Amino acid sequence: MIEFWFDFSSAYAYFAALEIEAVAARHGRSVRWRPYMLGTAFKVTGARGLSSTPLKKEYANHDWRRLARRKGVPFQLPEGHPLVALTATRAFYKVEALAPDQAGRFARSIFDRYYSTGLDTTRPDAVAALAAPLGLDPVEIAAGCAEAAIKDLARAASEEAVARGIFGSPWFFADGEPFWGHDRLPMLEDWLQRGGW
Amino acid sequence: MIEFWFDFSSAYAYFAALEIEAVAARHGRSVRWRPYMLGTAFKVTGARGLSSTPLKKEYANHDWRRLARRKGVPFQLPEGHPLVALTATRAFYKVEALAPDQAGRFARSIFDRYYSTGLDTTRPDAVAALAAPLGLDPVEIAAGCAEAAIKDLARAASEEAVARGIFGSPWFFADGEPFWGHDRLPMLEDWLQRGGW
Repeated sequence: MIEFWFDFSSAYAYFAALEIEAVAARHGRSVRWRPYMLGTAFKVTGARGLSSTPLKKEYANHDWRRLARRKGVPFQLPEGHPLVALTATRAFYKVEALAPDQAGRFARSIFDRYYSTGLDTTRPDAVAALAAPLGLDPVEIAAGCAEAAIKDLARAASEEAVARGIFGSPWFFADGEPFWGHDRLPMLEDWLQRGGW
Repeated sequence: MIEFWFDFSSAYAYFAALEIEAVAARHGRSVRWRPYMLGTAFKVTGARGLSSTPLKKEYANHDWRRLARRKGVPFQLPEGHPLVALTATRAFYKVEALAPDQAGRFARSIFDRYYSTGLDTTRPDAVAALAAPLGLDPVEIAAGCAEAAIKDLARAASEEAVARGIFGSPWFFADGEPFWGHDRLPMLEDWLQRGGW
């Protein structure tokens, strides 16, 4: 199993989301999708998001676009990016609670729509609508975003992330070994291939 | 030509320094070594060094050690790491002024000794001693660290870095295209191979 930790508003996590299942499958692993609120980690590290950091912002914007060209995938930043991912994160944990096997596909749908057609991830109904093709009830998912138990799950994920030293998005664990960043996927694969170094 | 921008106290720059000449050579390029003071960029981005950032510090320490194991290269942090790289940077620009063709080898020596035997890069005489095997006079290099013209060159490099959007170490430019981070060397090579995307 590979743990895949991310914030839904992280563009590098989007690129990782497009690849992680294939990486895992090549090595006989499954993926455990773990959305969390990156802002929780920023409170500990003192970092800010890429989109609000001078110099880094310009580089990241350029880098995302060339990555999308290289991989031949859609990439468009929604108006108001980065939207706060809390609603999408809660919807994910509601879906996972109801249908664990669909959670990864649901997360992937959120990424795909956010970075292509500008899905408004702050609207429970807009996010929950993506659960319908997975055979789930969008009304139930949207309602889940307001349930105390689901809010607790989302908060607990963010707290677990920081407790385990996670400070970025995307972030992977394979056999307890941490890998930070989309550009570390080749290193993660090398690690899996060799069984560690 | 590939521009290689770095701070001598950056451990990821050390790993890049071990590889960059071979990467460039594979694509018929030369390397222009450009030490600068990363702290100048931090003043603009508001970032701090890895070694003084909670969570990141622990990850980086773990990551450097596994990278060294994977590549089979020495890696030991000097006492007091990160030492302020200003003296080493000035010594570099003095060497470059006297013998441009030796500048890269001199920089590489500084990295090798800093991360293996704990070279004190704050001491002009200790740094300058590494110029002797290159046929240069260590006394002249050490004196250069105090020359106004050399100090100006070192300061100008840091100012140029920020003006060109550089905020990290290592950093590369190939044909004007920026690449940030040791883990982007494969992407840089892919770019050179394909002539851009």
